[in-house]
Amino acid sequence: MNQKVDEMSLPLANRKIYLDSVPREEALARLIGKMGAPGGLPAEEVPVSHALDRVTAEAVFAAISSPHFHASAMDGYAIRSEASFGASPVSPRLLQLGEEAHPVDTGEPLPSGADAVVIVENVHETGEGKIQIEAAVAPWSNVRVAGEDIVEGQLLLPAGHALRPFDLGGLLAAGVSKVKVRRRPVVTLIPTGDELVPPGAALRPGDLIEYNSVVLTGFITRWGGEARALPIVADRLEAIEEAVKNAVECSDIVLVNAGSSAGREDYTSAVVQRLGELLVHGIAIFPGKPTILGIARGKEGGAVPLIGVPGYPVSAVLALQEFVRPLMVHMLGAPSQEEAGVEAFMSRKSASRLGMEEFLRVKLGKVGERMIALPAKRGASVISSLIEADGIVRVPMNSEGIEAGARVRVELLRPLREVRGNILMAGSHDNALDLLSAEIRENFRNTSLRTSAVGSMAGLIALRAGEAHLAGSHLLDPETGEYNWSHIRRYLKECEVVVVNFVQREQGILLPRGNPKGIRSVADLAREEVAIVNRQSGAGTRILLDHLLAEAGIDSAAVRGYGSVETTHLALAMAVAAGRVDCGLGIRAAARLLGLDFIPLGSERFDFVIPAEHWDTIPLQRLVEILRREEFRARVRALGGYDTALSGRVLDPPASN
Amino acid sequence: MNQKVDEMSLPLANRKIYLDSVPREEALARLIGKMGAPGGLPAEEVPVSHALDRVTAEAVFAAISSPHFHASAMDGYAIRSEASFGASPVSPRLLQLGEEAHPVDTGEPLPSGADAVVIVENVHETGEGKIQIEAAVAPWSNVRVAGEDIVEGQLLLPAGHALRPFDLGGLLAAGVSKVKVRRRPVVTLIPTGDELVPPGAALRPGDLIEYNSVVLTGFITRWGGEARALPIVADRLEAIEEAVKNAVECSDIVLVNAGSSAGREDYTSAVVQRLGELLVHGIAIFPGKPTILGIARGKEGGAVPLIGVPGYPVSAVLALQEFVRPLMVHMLGAPSQEEAGVEAFMSRKSASRLGMEEFLRVKLGKVGERMIALPAKRGASVISSLIEADGIVRVPMNSEGIEAGARVRVELLRPLREVRGNILMAGSHDNALDLLSAEIRENFRNTSLRTSAVGSMAGLIALRAGEAHLAGSHLLDPETGEYNWSHIRRYLKECEVVVVNFVQREQGILLPRGNPKGIRSVADLAREEVAIVNRQSGAGTRILLDHLLAEAGIDSAAVRGYGSVETTHLALAMAVAAGRVDCGLGIRAAARLLGLDFIPLGSERFDFVIPAEHWDTIPLQRLVEILRREEFRARVRALGGYDTALSGRVLDPPASN
Repeated sequence: MNQKVDEMSLPLANRKIYLDSVPREEALARLIGKMGAPGGLPAEEVPVSHALDRVTAEAVFAAISSPHFHASAMDGYAIRSEASFGASPVSPRLLQLGEEAHPVDTGEPLPSGADAVVIVENVHETGEGKIQIEAAVAPWSNVRVAGEDIVEGQLLLPAGHALRPFDLGGLLAAGVSKVKVRRRPVVTLIPTGDELVPPGAALRPGDLIEYNSVVLTGFITRWGGEARALPIVADRLEAIEEAVKNAVECSDIVLVNAGSSAGREDYTSAVVQRLGELLVHGIAIFPGKPTILGIARGKEGGAVPLIGVPGYPVSAVLALQEFVRPLMVHMLGAPSQEEAGVEAFMSRKSASRLGMEEFLRVKLGKVGERMIALPAKRGASVISSLIEADGIVRVPMNSEGIEAGARVRVELLRPLREVRGNILMAGSHDNALDLLSAEIRENFRNTSLRTSAVGSMAGLIALRAGEAHLAGSHLLDPETGEYNWSHIRRYLKECEVVVVNFVQREQGILLPRGNPKGIRSVADLAREEVAIVNRQSGAGTRILLDHLLAEAGIDSAAVRGYGSVETTHLALAMAVAAGRVDCGLGIRAAARLLGLDFIPLGSERFDFVIPAEHWDTIPLQRLVEILRREEFRARVRALGGYDTALSGRVLDPPASN
Repeated sequence: MNQKVDEMSLPLANRKIYLDSVPREEALARLIGKMGAPGGLPAEEVPVSHALDRVTAEAVFAAISSPHFHASAMDGYAIRSEASFGASPVSPRLLQLGEEAHPVDTGEPLPSGADAVVIVENVHETGEGKIQIEAAVAPWSNVRVAGEDIVEGQLLLPAGHALRPFDLGGLLAAGVSKVKVRRRPVVTLIPTGDELVPPGAALRPGDLIEYNSVVLTGFITRWGGEARALPIVADRLEAIEEAVKNAVECSDIVLVNAGSSAGREDYTSAVVQRLGELLVHGIAIFPGKPTILGIARGKEGGAVPLIGVPGYPVSAVLALQEFVRPLMVHMLGAPSQEEAGVEAFMSRKSASRLGMEEFLRVKLGKVGERMIALPAKRGASVISSLIEADGIVRVPMNSEGIEAGARVRVELLRPLREVRGNILMAGSHDNALDLLSAEIRENFRNTSLRTSAVGSMAGLIALRAGEAHLAGSHLLDPETGEYNWSHIRRYLKECEVVVVNFVQREQGILLPRGNPKGIRSVADLAREEVAIVNRQSGAGTRILLDHLLAEAGIDSAAVRGYGSVETTHLALAMAVAAGRVDCGLGIRAAARLLGLDFIPLGSERFDFVIPAEHWDTIPLQRLVEILRREEFRARVRALGGYDTALSGRVLDPPASN
């Protein structure tokens, strides 16, 4: 509070940007602390038929019993049980139809006086308007007694309960046809930024497609809110202030989705201070640090949270999940929510910054008996990292990271059932893996390929550690000219493996179209005005480059950019296409996809190395099945630079061994 | 096929009802086998902004890279990195603004020629249109390079993928603004039965409120279908046939929700045979046995499943979950789905029928380190059993049940987070427990009370076995006149406990209004024309009755109905109210709720017995806090027959001990 007054008393232009590092729990507590008791949203009465997923505003008690009468539980005859006492095959009882016995179907009410049903199979119709029974029936046999399911006056559902389909059925059965629920929280989202353009607009450099609205409104809808995304507001303090002011009048929560620059955030925090109270500016989470939490007063004096959501998509999603979701839950008076989780073992060490809670994206796969978590892309700006990840691991603030092999809880980004069908592949990258991945998933809905581009060598080491189902490898042994076998022998001594060819592919030099620097061969890479980008250490393509440089008698230290790396062919090709470098080694398919020139240097074998214990499992057999299909091979060849003659073939070690 | 022809050739009236017991997997396989390849629903193109939760019809590849230009990752100056090489504090470099250096904000594109950004903090403006830098910057420093997130042409999403909020963001970022998704499956539901009346209608005996439609359409909507519930159709073969025929023309799946009598099912199976092919009639699951699976041909010749959904609500939900959901998933081409699950230990043995797969409803609670599963109500007709349960355990066909202490997987009916806040109470029943349950949940959203009415004695034994957090007990020791302590001493020898009073309450005889049989005291229970209903063995009220009968010198064998039992006061009161018995022992509150007469016999103490290890936990302290609130006590007293003077007080053992 004091801080707010201090900051507000300064002229805006002179104000320094305060970017704190408030721990997440404290930041949330400050915000929730301003909101009053849970369940603060007004109640409204809705028909039960329209109440799915709504949250009850008060406890609901049964208005009537269900069933509300004694019903026959079988097809048969309703009788007074006493009339059957003493009946046996030798002394059967005869009962007068219409007087002592009444035919009833399942679900029909018992006539007055009746207290049991004789099932139709145990009755003999004598033909004189009488039935004969040969055994006594106990009172209330074959009867669904009144109140068996629900007794009038009993508690059906507590307040703060999200109504499931069968809850609605229970309400109707108990004679409750309208139910008081909390109004859905109205969450208004204001995208701001001069660089933003709506999806579908023509793009100029500097334009950013405004896609956060769709992401954020999607989550808000899923969490039971009514999301309203406004049109893009320009980067002017007054424009943003006016939009926020109007939104506060008609919303329960207002989100300002700022660009991610310090300047833009400043507008948001300034607006929050002008219209209400700034509670937190800067939270000790990554991604999500620039989140702003504030509070304003709505039309009727109620507290309306104002949240500055960072512009980077991953930060935005996390800010929403960690602050807006608990706010909505609080306003609805519902129990806290959390994502479904699973226990897993970290495959690799992952360092984190002390003092920041990190949300680490991971890919998952069940390798043998263990669920393995593989760290995925980390940037705040890469939405693809969320799409590709299977879950998120929280690295606590007071931790410098997670050790390899550590047990972690993973919050799932997709259903566990899907994750269980993942094939974890570590090793080299190839564009045709995208195709393979798509084909597997299209043909076998419960199997997915998850690739981790760590390089051929690291792939074999991951296999050895039990952290992948297969490795993708194209490791040339310069001495024998053979691929993979000598490395398998060295790194997977104690592991029985099956080697299956994936593809044979052309490697070569990727160049900008027209080859402006006139590169003709590997020898040109040593020219002073030529900058290359390399692949990471242990990548088969880097080993190939080293081999070719050695053959050409070139010292790698003489090659500009030898030390800079990309981890996939596509990323390397992108660096060439975008003019960041003059060339690089890679596969023809990558050159073709981005319209680059290509100087072929030779063909190489890209194999899948599969431990014997995984070979005979359904997912791996599905993968091999796809490799052997001619439709798939034709698609791979269409990418350019691929030979699929060996694809799917189990390879024997070279005869010399 | 042959069977179908045989049955069809018989006149309808003479046909015997075939009710098979086909195993679930086989029944589903027969049905899916008729459906062709997965993903059979037509594709349609929708704007990405409307595609949340829709299922992709084909793999989606990126149309553009994201970012589609090199963007500054910081506020600063864009330069050619080469121009900075060699800069140091002793030999700074001066760069001409507008020529060699260009101010850029985060997110702005780099001007042509620039390949790095110097952050604003590392720059000194000289005031002559120049900036001074004192350190070299590497190429591409502080730059978000084009394609960092998504590279043009890369696989974004496979076919058969349900779109999550961030998937939509990724599509838009990759320049994809429309996406091909499978049409939602149209599922038409036809409720049939003369006994059905719409919710809200005036009820006569025999009427059944038609609430299954709301339950079934709720699930279908959740699973991504378009649910259409038709008005109730009368129990006539022709009417049902016409409704089904029309529905087949415009639906992807047709559900006939028959009454549960054999006669009604017969209509459904007859209609299925007339309009198509009957695949399965009767499945080895409980609940859900009378499910019917068949197939017809739609307008364009496509296979339209016809499913006879049983009338009992629990059977209907299970038939839907086990057959309709997989069907929908198959038609959408999505991966198989399953409910989230948790491992638990069974608290009690639960017998099941060999040859039937049983879906056992359970309540859950974490007692100490173990998640405990407590069997709940089992009937097919009681929708309240689904509302009260936390999850479902599948008992395999080849099993006769589950042993106490067995490890089971529980499919969750509510989020695990909610389940973790459950307080498991075993023991005696009291109407005020409903109020307590409602109050706890209303005040502490993450805590719920789950009661299991097993009787006072069984409650103490459950504590001993570590299967509950507290026991509700009102066990009179006739010798001392004291409550609970002597039984605690006997059954909980090795367990340190805290005893807290819940309520003191009036016990007495519950009678129909006007007391038609003129009952005045316990002595009247021995009269020949008086039938009572008792409580289960080990229930405190039963022990009280035994004590009173002994005092009155009555042999329990002389009391009619002594052997028949209800497990709650409310159920016992309902038996009296409905005229099933003449009277029974119970609490005044139950009499009051159902408008019964009541002869008080005395007041008793109903205590909570809480093991010391649970006493100091947040949920239990919350429970005790509620007991001590005057608002709560006032509400309890308003139920009638309660004294709350001791409520929430920790009780000491009697001095004599």
